[in-house]
Amino acid sequence: MEKFFLSELPLAIRESTLEATASADSIDLSIVAEGLFTANNIWMMMATALVFIMHLGFAGVEAGFSQSKNTVNILFKNTLTPVIGILTYYIIGFNLMYPGYETPGWFAFGGFFLDLPVNGNSADYASGGYTYWTDFLFQAMFAATAATIVSGAVAERIKISSYITFTLLFVGIVYPIVGSWKWGGGALDAAGFYDFAGSTLVHSVGGWGALAGIMLLGPRIGKYVDGKVIDKPGSSVPLATIGVFLLWLGWFGFNGGSVLSGDPGKVSFVLVTTSLGACTGAIGGLFAGYFVFKRLDFGMVLNGLLAGLVGITAGADVISPGWALVVGFVAGIMVVLSAITLDKLKLDDCVGAVSVHLVCGVWGTLAVGIFGVAADGTPMPFLPQLYGVAVCGATAFASAYIIFFVLKKLFGIRVSEQHEIEGLDSHEHGIRGYTIVYDE
Amino acid sequence: MEKFFLSELPLAIRESTLEATASADSIDLSIVAEGLFTANNIWMMMATALVFIMHLGFAGVEAGFSQSKNTVNILFKNTLTPVIGILTYYIIGFNLMYPGYETPGWFAFGGFFLDLPVNGNSADYASGGYTYWTDFLFQAMFAATAATIVSGAVAERIKISSYITFTLLFVGIVYPIVGSWKWGGGALDAAGFYDFAGSTLVHSVGGWGALAGIMLLGPRIGKYVDGKVIDKPGSSVPLATIGVFLLWLGWFGFNGGSVLSGDPGKVSFVLVTTSLGACTGAIGGLFAGYFVFKRLDFGMVLNGLLAGLVGITAGADVISPGWALVVGFVAGIMVVLSAITLDKLKLDDCVGAVSVHLVCGVWGTLAVGIFGVAADGTPMPFLPQLYGVAVCGATAFASAYIIFFVLKKLFGIRVSEQHEIEGLDSHEHGIRGYTIVYDE
Amino acid sequence: MEKFFLSELPLAIRESTLEATASADSIDLSIVAEGLFTANNIWMMMATALVFIMHLGFAGVEAGFSQSKNTVNILFKNTLTPVIGILTYYIIGFNLMYPGYETPGWFAFGGFFLDLPVNGNSADYASGGYTYWTDFLFQAMFAATAATIVSGAVAERIKISSYITFTLLFVGIVYPIVGSWKWGGGALDAAGFYDFAGSTLVHSVGGWGALAGIMLLGPRIGKYVDGKVIDKPGSSVPLATIGVFLLWLGWFGFNGGSVLSGDPGKVSFVLVTTSLGACTGAIGGLFAGYFVFKRLDFGMVLNGLLAGLVGITAGADVISPGWALVVGFVAGIMVVLSAITLDKLKLDDCVGAVSVHLVCGVWGTLAVGIFGVAADGTPMPFLPQLYGVAVCGATAFASAYIIFFVLKKLFGIRVSEQHEIEGLDSHEHGIRGYTIVYDE
Repeated sequence: MEKFFLSELPLAIRESTLEATASADSIDLSIVAEGLFTANNIWMMMATALVFIMHLGFAGVEAGFSQSKNTVNILFKNTLTPVIGILTYYIIGFNLMYPGYETPGWFAFGGFFLDLPVNGNSADYASGGYTYWTDFLFQAMFAATAATIVSGAVAERIKISSYITFTLLFVGIVYPIVGSWKWGGGALDAAGFYDFAGSTLVHSVGGWGALAGIMLLGPRIGKYVDGKVIDKPGSSVPLATIGVFLLWLGWFGFNGGSVLSGDPGKVSFVLVTTSLGACTGAIGGLFAGYFVFKRLDFGMVLNGLLAGLVGITAGADVISPGWALVVGFVAGIMVVLSAITLDKLKLDDCVGAVSVHLVCGVWGTLAVGIFGVAADGTPMPFLPQLYGVAVCGATAFASAYIIFFVLKKLFGIRVSEQHEIEGLDSHEHGIRGYTIVYDE
Repeated sequence: MEKFFLSELPLAIRESTLEATASADSIDLSIVAEGLFTANNIWMMMATALVFIMHLGFAGVEAGFSQSKNTVNILFKNTLTPVIGILTYYIIGFNLMYPGYETPGWFAFGGFFLDLPVNGNSADYASGGYTYWTDFLFQAMFAATAATIVSGAVAERIKISSYITFTLLFVGIVYPIVGSWKWGGGALDAAGFYDFAGSTLVHSVGGWGALAGIMLLGPRIGKYVDGKVIDKPGSSVPLATIGVFLLWLGWFGFNGGSVLSGDPGKVSFVLVTTSLGACTGAIGGLFAGYFVFKRLDFGMVLNGLLAGLVGITAGADVISPGWALVVGFVAGIMVVLSAITLDKLKLDDCVGAVSVHLVCGVWGTLAVGIFGVAADGTPMPFLPQLYGVAVCGATAFASAYIIFFVLKKLFGIRVSEQHEIEGLDSHEHGIRGYTIVYDE
Repeated sequence: MEKFFLSELPLAIRESTLEATASADSIDLSIVAEGLFTANNIWMMMATALVFIMHLGFAGVEAGFSQSKNTVNILFKNTLTPVIGILTYYIIGFNLMYPGYETPGWFAFGGFFLDLPVNGNSADYASGGYTYWTDFLFQAMFAATAATIVSGAVAERIKISSYITFTLLFVGIVYPIVGSWKWGGGALDAAGFYDFAGSTLVHSVGGWGALAGIMLLGPRIGKYVDGKVIDKPGSSVPLATIGVFLLWLGWFGFNGGSVLSGDPGKVSFVLVTTSLGACTGAIGGLFAGYFVFKRLDFGMVLNGLLAGLVGITAGADVISPGWALVVGFVAGIMVVLSAITLDKLKLDDCVGAVSVHLVCGVWGTLAVGIFGVAADGTPMPFLPQLYGVAVCGATAFASAYIIFFVLKKLFGIRVSEQHEIEGLDSHEHGIRGYTIVYDE
């Protein structure tokens, strides 16, 4: 029985490829460089896919940790967040974040849209490690992350129209401008500020937005009663767990992709520090949660794990594995202390987003100035870290506060009391998150 | 303390490798080409894994959007679908789809099974971008997709034996023969028909099968009563959302892998158009759903997103990002209009599979002839697209209709009224999908 | 409108890279080798990520197949398992498993921790296919797998403190020492024992631990009553299905990564045998389940699929696709027979972990000596397989039995009757797995 794929044809094809290469007398340089370039770009595309799946991770954490009457609303928000993030990044964000500063500054704009040639042959336009298109999509996935952080904190009582308007402005404008200061070669970069994969530029920026949101929204009805904090049990711990595992998985791309190539040593080193930070973050959350609540608090394990990931993100490439353990452990403890403190202040954060992303984002950024070692072996300086944290924090918080404040004055940002009590799903979406029945 | 991995040994090994390469006086060509070949093959294997996970995506969408009394039945079908798909593709499908036409035609067969040497050293048999084994597995994952599309539409009332028999025939024979006409170098390929990653060859073929199925099955009991469409609430919106996100993720491999190499420019371009199509599909579904149902219909957002992905699939490599936005947006609107129309016709599709995969598969294929630009910069022609859509559609629909019709006459394809009302899980599988109790 | 990314700058950068390469007169060897090395390392990092996500797969299977009153407890255990696994592997496991035997033996230790240079430039220390860091993380993900297998079997009645202590010792010490005998170049490797990706070293080692655990724990209350086996319905079949699909996905990395490079022919061959084994495993479980239980037993399909994966793991690179079908099918049947047998012996395994991982792990390892063909075309010998199975099995079982036995004598390993009946979630964690309510 003759077989197409077993004939000598493909073998011949392959040999002829090699001959063609050899026949140039000296080796064809484009094939040599293309191997490395292709490999690097593949890593960056996989990293993009991994960061993408973090949006499902966030959706899982937020829907799992919030009440079943609002499940659809949360999933609706979290599905639209990457959609809005990618579209706004396509329209203006990418060229706001990487505008090509003539001198390092605070604002520049590279123009609307993308407009490379249609037929995909964009390799010529690529920098060393990946193509223009990979660059755009990887960064677009990052952009959407900042908004999704806000989503969790303000859940269960924010008006959907307010959230969408906020997201359009925050992801479309605030995030890329702040990002441009470091990653776009702007003023913070020139000032020596270091943020490898975004403890500040992504996580604390999102966290500051979340803080502004919950300050202006106020706590959920019945959350703080007579000086007590009332638990609002989440609908599904398995869903939240799926979310956390997917976030850890996604962080392989978030941090691993931030090397901006497939550099074997650098990327794999980053994956190790990232995973170690996650592990001790979980342990820190477990210990602190046990100390405070006298139980094996699973929510604190999960949030501790995320806290460890956020914490190690700023210095995953410059902090040794041993210190990564410390950074993660401290982050895991901080997330518990922060959650308690916020509740004391009656700042109601449904999923602990401020504690995980703002507090541990700041911690991780400062940790670079404490434990980080530069490529030349010298310690990383601390003051530029403090400066970057302050400048980005002030900008992100003020911007978010202003956006939410104006929306509140103009339209109101909170659903009616009735809708909040009865659940957003039935009122805004007309369906329930779960319909599990066996009798008709 | 001496450490194995820290001794000079590995360093020496690495240096000796380089020396061995250099000692050939001129560079060893196999290593040069192997770098690129290895990278390409890695991308194709990752794409295979991503397409595989689409089967979990489909399982999530279908189980989430259908009633809890049939959850196990749906998961059972969707687990067996890739199993059957891969096995039939191994036995005959692969060699039906890539039979090695001597002249472009309508049927050829390359023989049963795979039979390369055992010990994995198949690189010699590979074409430029990936090995024979990668080729087989990537295509096998595609094949199973076509059947899984049918699964969703016919859910909640089809006999499991009918579904399995149908799947064996449809995936084992119909899908690969139709596929061979374009991707196997057959008659449609020669006619200038273009379908990059399968808007027609996979999605509308599956969609036509689904349409035939629901026509012959009839609607679920109680779906259309007194001229009204009665909602059958899905068991779990989070599960459906997980499904949609995994499908989007999987589409990175579905479209990105259809480049058939890791070509940096082409693949990353395709990922961008794919993601943009998904985004505007979601927006289109949101708008159309709001216009029609006067609510923020989350189901239409999710199906719109999938519609955008299906729509851009045929031309993801030849349609510019700007037009990709349009293709996705139109698909998102069409999915809503189609869902309403099918309900008007009392064609009961549990999860909207016909609207998403058939309607938007056709739309996407025609869109290549409207917005597509060939590698030489000329517009892609429209008529071959229409021709391909018609030929594949007629074949897929007729084949599926005949299979279901014969099965209906011989054995019946629908469960008893009692089983349908009480749920398939308890009758066919003896367990329930969810058992959430806290009191014994 | 001028655009940064569309200017000639990046093009110039790229060209200058190529020139720099060429200007060395002869080609720069490091770039040539770097392309292949980078590609190989990328595959291994992706494999690491895929093995990581198996931990979510296990969490899904175990939480889905066990009762809702213990859901949080199971998720808690399964989240801490990779955390503990990675940390112990970092501290001692890695250097116990790859200690650098001077002569092949039974024990050696390479010292505590990892201590390569901080700044990620570890490529010089790498062996051919991946970096030191990738090596560590890939193997660490494997290590945690062995413990997670135990977790499922002993669920619903084990004390959390006992489980954690057991895991620390089993993953930190037993697993790496046993592993060193083959993969670390120890005595079993010298004896000709073959275990490609761990049917014995990972799966049956975990399975023996699980068997010891359920022997010493005893069955759950109410599991065996008056000679009958009482079903304990799992909380969520969708969750278990998600778990199984993620395990299959993860096995792309588990087996595919065990090639220890991105070798195109070898890795893709392994993916094909792995997937074929999974498929016929599912079919075997379906048939055997139908024969025994007279129903379409979905649990047996899922466990059969996993059994097929476990079975093919030892010989995925040396067993032909045709025999892989047989190995998987037999494994699928064995898992059903084993489950029945265990119930006859009143050995209560909540999720079938012993049947899947121990029984089919042994089967798969022996199958190498039946169907395997070495690289030189000769059959693989059978006796070394039997020897390896016996030595590893005796060691793993005895070690696990001793650990659990000592823990039982010292502290007790089982929760109180009241806690078991009322559920571990409310007593140990203070929350419920699911809180789905729509009325307040």
